[in-house]
Amino acid sequence: VLRFAERTKGARRSAIRELLKYTEQPEVISFAGGLPDPATFPLDFLAKVAQEEILHNAVKSLQYTTTEGKRPLREALVRWLAEEGIHTTMDRIVITNGSQQGLDLLGRAFLDEGDAVFVSLPTYLGALQAFQAYRPTIVGIPLENDGMDLAFLRRAIREARRSGHEPKLIYVVPDFQNPTGITWSKEKRAELLKIAGKEDLLIVEDIPYRWLRYKGEHIPTIASLDEEGRVIVLLTFSKILAAGLRVGALVGPEEVVNMVVTLKQGADLCGPSLTQRLVVRFLTEYDVHAHIARLCQHYKVKLETMLQALSQYMPEEAEWTKPEGGLFVWVKLPEGVDTAKMLERALAHKVAYVPGQPFFADGSGQNTMRLSFALATKEELKEGIRRLGAVVKEEIAALSVIRGS
Amino acid sequence: VLRFAERTKGARRSAIRELLKYTEQPEVISFAGGLPDPATFPLDFLAKVAQEEILHNAVKSLQYTTTEGKRPLREALVRWLAEEGIHTTMDRIVITNGSQQGLDLLGRAFLDEGDAVFVSLPTYLGALQAFQAYRPTIVGIPLENDGMDLAFLRRAIREARRSGHEPKLIYVVPDFQNPTGITWSKEKRAELLKIAGKEDLLIVEDIPYRWLRYKGEHIPTIASLDEEGRVIVLLTFSKILAAGLRVGALVGPEEVVNMVVTLKQGADLCGPSLTQRLVVRFLTEYDVHAHIARLCQHYKVKLETMLQALSQYMPEEAEWTKPEGGLFVWVKLPEGVDTAKMLERALAHKVAYVPGQPFFADGSGQNTMRLSFALATKEELKEGIRRLGAVVKEEIAALSVIRGS
Repeated sequence: VLRFAERTKGARRSAIRELLKYTEQPEVISFAGGLPDPATFPLDFLAKVAQEEILHNAVKSLQYTTTEGKRPLREALVRWLAEEGIHTTMDRIVITNGSQQGLDLLGRAFLDEGDAVFVSLPTYLGALQAFQAYRPTIVGIPLENDGMDLAFLRRAIREARRSGHEPKLIYVVPDFQNPTGITWSKEKRAELLKIAGKEDLLIVEDIPYRWLRYKGEHIPTIASLDEEGRVIVLLTFSKILAAGLRVGALVGPEEVVNMVVTLKQGADLCGPSLTQRLVVRFLTEYDVHAHIARLCQHYKVKLETMLQALSQYMPEEAEWTKPEGGLFVWVKLPEGVDTAKMLERALAHKVAYVPGQPFFADGSGQNTMRLSFALATKEELKEGIRRLGAVVKEEIAALSVIRGS
Repeated sequence: VLRFAERTKGARRSAIRELLKYTEQPEVISFAGGLPDPATFPLDFLAKVAQEEILHNAVKSLQYTTTEGKRPLREALVRWLAEEGIHTTMDRIVITNGSQQGLDLLGRAFLDEGDAVFVSLPTYLGALQAFQAYRPTIVGIPLENDGMDLAFLRRAIREARRSGHEPKLIYVVPDFQNPTGITWSKEKRAELLKIAGKEDLLIVEDIPYRWLRYKGEHIPTIASLDEEGRVIVLLTFSKILAAGLRVGALVGPEEVVNMVVTLKQGADLCGPSLTQRLVVRFLTEYDVHAHIARLCQHYKVKLETMLQALSQYMPEEAEWTKPEGGLFVWVKLPEGVDTAKMLERALAHKVAYVPGQPFFADGSGQNTMRLSFALATKEELKEGIRRLGAVVKEEIAALSVIRGS
């Protein structure tokens, strides 16, 4: 008989990752995955530098590296983050396996059982999974169009403290959030910092989509407004270079980074050297700004096509976000619609999406869904949303019949 | 003020990794690192397939992959493990970031605070680090020349149970162990399985060095003798292909692998695709047997050179192991010698090693040290051991003076 640890009792796999298996049938137009478009990966460059690194730099590219990650990569990140107003040093950066490992290591560093973590409703599913391994109390805060409901957050912090759950972390994805596409206003970013200062909390600012802005003005990172060392930044090259390299970074106060490196040594000793070397070459030799401009143009057209198709085909009862970047649009249907159940109807119509509920720490959101526009062609976007509109209309009609009866 | 989690209180970095910084001075002949020799990496092949994968297989090599790892890699491992008498299926394998991530995920899956884990004295330092994050009671069992002292193990299991520490895992490196180079006899392997069966425990069989046998007969893996599904195998391509790829695997009962995959999803979502694809190509297209034969010839000469130099230069008070493979020789000096303190004298003589104490879960082993012969040339091996012999003689003489006074 296997006697697993207590902490495994709440462990469950991502509903999305399991779901993707069913959405990958031929002829289904899928808006379900959260993957970047491989058409945006700079293959010629990566192939060339991979070959060079292996043939002429094997001790750096194929031998073990340090737990904190390659020094030239951390140096290049210092320069790159300065462009985002984040002024840091090499010693305050640790390279991680995507942002996901950063989330896990933060949970490991900070969360005792019952400690309170504050996330938006909805939030990135992987953050919920990462934190849950450490059995905290995850407190959901409503998400408005310009960021968290901060009055609600203030009350929730006090309430957690009163009920014996020590507030530790506030987790946010302030730019083009997964799953909603919502971006925080500058005012709310500054206000969040004030709250964290007053309540002595740390903010985890996860910025995987930050560089994918297709219109509007850049808004400063929370970290760039931080004067007290309260912000830990997670970033990844998954969306702007290639997802399969799994190169991300955690950037934070030196004491936090030191602890994370210590814990990472037990967790995986060190990450791969080769993939880190590819990112070093990308940041130091490639025209990263031009590359990102091309990426943005590529996705901008898709986002606009999806938004236009939603206007054309969705019934008036549906609402959706109008993101200025990222990879996702978020749709809210009338109360009573269960998008998890509706998925069967959608698959029958050869279209797929991700039901929204798994993104809600409090189990709500049955009437929501996430649509990714990253992988579909312009034609698929139009046709897929046309099909989805029909599905939603049928579902609402069926619901009315039931209610009417 | 940072409020780290309780579990971080015992966390410390590898004494070895910190030490390596000081041993890397020019002119120092270092036997300290545990790294494979990059001269053994098949660079031409890896450069060619890396280029092909990136240019012509980008969706497989640069997009996200599954948490359990690439299917063709798991399929290739099924065939490869069959050669070691380990008959498994694709669903009972999860690809990990080296063996180290496998150790961490097993700790996460099985260890509640205070649960008992049994390891040899000494054992692989990374295993101690990985398990310690879950705050178990780590019980050290003396290591004899043919494996653990199993009578001692039996008593220790009963004693742990009696004192409220639930026995969960027995961790072993049965082939050319790091740090001692010791290999378990077939008899002790079979006996260990009987003990695990009787006491209802799991065995973690870590086999990074298994393919590096330079003389003598192969001894069956413990997993190949297992009829009850009690053995979890950890393997890695770090020593036989290239350390910087960080591709390893955990192979075990389906229920264990399912749990590990669930936990891994929160820990890092998935590993890199590119490095996994390189290992797929290595296992399916390269002449792996010929490659391993070359590796073994390469290291065999180094091991023999080191052993011969030890005979020539070490004082008679020193003892050392005579491994038939792996990367390490283990030296035991008279009681009273403290190899950690002696390291200063060694660095003055321009030679370095790893003091043995950090490998001992019980804090003993002050008079031991680990020597790696992997990176040094034949000439460096001779000269380095000559220097080390002089250091040891001085140290023993100094000790005698103190004792005599």
